[in-house]
Amino acid sequence: MEKVNLKTENLKKDIIKIFKKFGLSNNHALISANALINAELVGAYGHGLTRLKMYCDRISKKVINPKPKIKIKKISQSISHIDANNSIGFVAADIAIKKAIQNAKKTGVGLVAVKNSGHYGLSGYYAEQAVKKNLITMIYTNAPPAVAPHGALKSLFGTNPICFGTPTGSKIPFILDTSISMINRGKIRFAAKNNKKIPDGVALDKFGKITTDPKKALQGVQLPIAGFRGSGLAWMVDILSGVLTGGNHAGRVKDPFDDFSGPQNIGHLFITFKTNLFVKNYNNRIKNNIKKVKRLPKIKGVKEIVYPGQNKYKRFKMNSKKEIKLTEVIKKDLELLKN
Amino acid sequence: MEKVNLKTENLKKDIIKIFKKFGLSNNHALISANALINAELVGAYGHGLTRLKMYCDRISKKVINPKPKIKIKKISQSISHIDANNSIGFVAADIAIKKAIQNAKKTGVGLVAVKNSGHYGLSGYYAEQAVKKNLITMIYTNAPPAVAPHGALKSLFGTNPICFGTPTGSKIPFILDTSISMINRGKIRFAAKNNKKIPDGVALDKFGKITTDPKKALQGVQLPIAGFRGSGLAWMVDILSGVLTGGNHAGRVKDPFDDFSGPQNIGHLFITFKTNLFVKNYNNRIKNNIKKVKRLPKIKGVKEIVYPGQNKYKRFKMNSKKEIKLTEVIKKDLELLKN
Repeated sequence: MEKVNLKTENLKKDIIKIFKKFGLSNNHALISANALINAELVGAYGHGLTRLKMYCDRISKKVINPKPKIKIKKISQSISHIDANNSIGFVAADIAIKKAIQNAKKTGVGLVAVKNSGHYGLSGYYAEQAVKKNLITMIYTNAPPAVAPHGALKSLFGTNPICFGTPTGSKIPFILDTSISMINRGKIRFAAKNNKKIPDGVALDKFGKITTDPKKALQGVQLPIAGFRGSGLAWMVDILSGVLTGGNHAGRVKDPFDDFSGPQNIGHLFITFKTNLFVKNYNNRIKNNIKKVKRLPKIKGVKEIVYPGQNKYKRFKMNSKKEIKLTEVIKKDLELLKN
Repeated sequence: MEKVNLKTENLKKDIIKIFKKFGLSNNHALISANALINAELVGAYGHGLTRLKMYCDRISKKVINPKPKIKIKKISQSISHIDANNSIGFVAADIAIKKAIQNAKKTGVGLVAVKNSGHYGLSGYYAEQAVKKNLITMIYTNAPPAVAPHGALKSLFGTNPICFGTPTGSKIPFILDTSISMINRGKIRFAAKNNKKIPDGVALDKFGKITTDPKKALQGVQLPIAGFRGSGLAWMVDILSGVLTGGNHAGRVKDPFDDFSGPQNIGHLFITFKTNLFVKNYNNRIKNNIKKVKRLPKIKGVKEIVYPGQNKYKRFKMNSKKEIKLTEVIKKDLELLKN
């Protein structure tokens, strides 16, 4: 990780201590703390410390395994299958992306499936790791029911992000990490936890009416982007990350906050490949691509056309210099978990 | 191809004759005719016979090569690179999907990039071929500028479809083939050619105003799905199919109807993998997945929740029994090209 503000370093130490208290190894506690701090620094608060207590609760209730025996099965030089043994998702994803990087470096392409995992935070965080090794990557994961299939009155798909990352020939990677719902579920949870409203037109309550109340939205249905198109993309992600990998699918992934009746058994799929498989000058080509887009005439009020990941990188740089602001709820969680 | 109506068979013979007259080999003429007829039968009229004259014009003006020397370069057992030598897109895509199938059958995963190709019609048509061989597939291609990047006032991305196909354990494959624009460009062309209107809110004219006139829309800008999310997905497709493959990108793909100043040099990317890499009972798992979605409570008026590809399959079955209805414009094109 990059250099961060001293208070952030101390916060990270606290989180590591907490995870270790709950039974995680040094290394797994570090991996998990890094992922949570990163989410705060990039401004993805719904994937940050607001989830710390949930992870600890799940360990306490034995639906996350703090001492997992993670098995990596080699299918071929390019392909691996990981059984995460109900580890905390961060650890499973960390092992998987490293394996996917290794496979792609060896053979040009890597395909790594994970089963028996849990929520791993931001796909983009793992994509960045592959991009730093000069690889292109595509990452899919499923999630608890939140979005109704097109034509259905009930949620079944998760917000199922589609993630794509590529080197750009500059220090800021291109990382598209977009859920197929109108709004990220983490943002709704964050709004609910902090008594804020959500935008109009992104969710329905349990009776099928548009709502701006995040609590009602969490009991209702999130809307997919672009009707049947978004619904189809969500279905694709459910198949790639659930049906294919051996993970849960078709609405069987448990909500990590509300359902402690068993592990989540989330599945993930990591695809990686080298940038120079087909062209020698990939970095020049993508630099040129981005330059051409940036030079287009802009809509009034738009200063710069940004590529996916650019704003997140800026937020990360800026936030790394400052102290992470904790809400009262999160401060209370931290005190409670430390002692 | 499936059994089709006798008049459709005769129509196909006419198209083969036309393509051969324009210099294509027997085999290439057959491949191209099959693709065009298939588009008509699945109801994707924008990719059907409305394009026949355009292909022939491009051959006449030497921007499609009727006698291409297509080179297939083996990068590894899994990975191949195809230089299509400006062939008609159908032929390049046909060779590429067959190679991607072969590679996946051999090693579990196939990755095939194509450069110097042209418009190949429907991605879903090639996805079906892989699915019939019991493979999962993801296909990306770029296209001439039609969609403005988020924040820009000018088109640069194509409608850049995202295509995903999987076996379903039943005879109807799951084929998601969705452009990232609100509406398929082929549909706008079809409307323009037949003096019909397009829906509200899918396109802007060249001055940035919403329009329902397809001719004005073709000179203006198509809107992406879901703002920056759709724009990001279009950018991803441009990178995967253009930057990576050695094809044109960043708005350099020429419009096949309007720009005869050179070949299109479109790029495509075909990813294929076996369904049983990580689970033994994939077909049962996906059957179960689809069953669970179909059993959800439905919105009033919805009789059945359908998966992507299901309606297309029904249309294909139905249309295969009947004569293909030709518009007056297409009838004229056919007469002109035959003689």
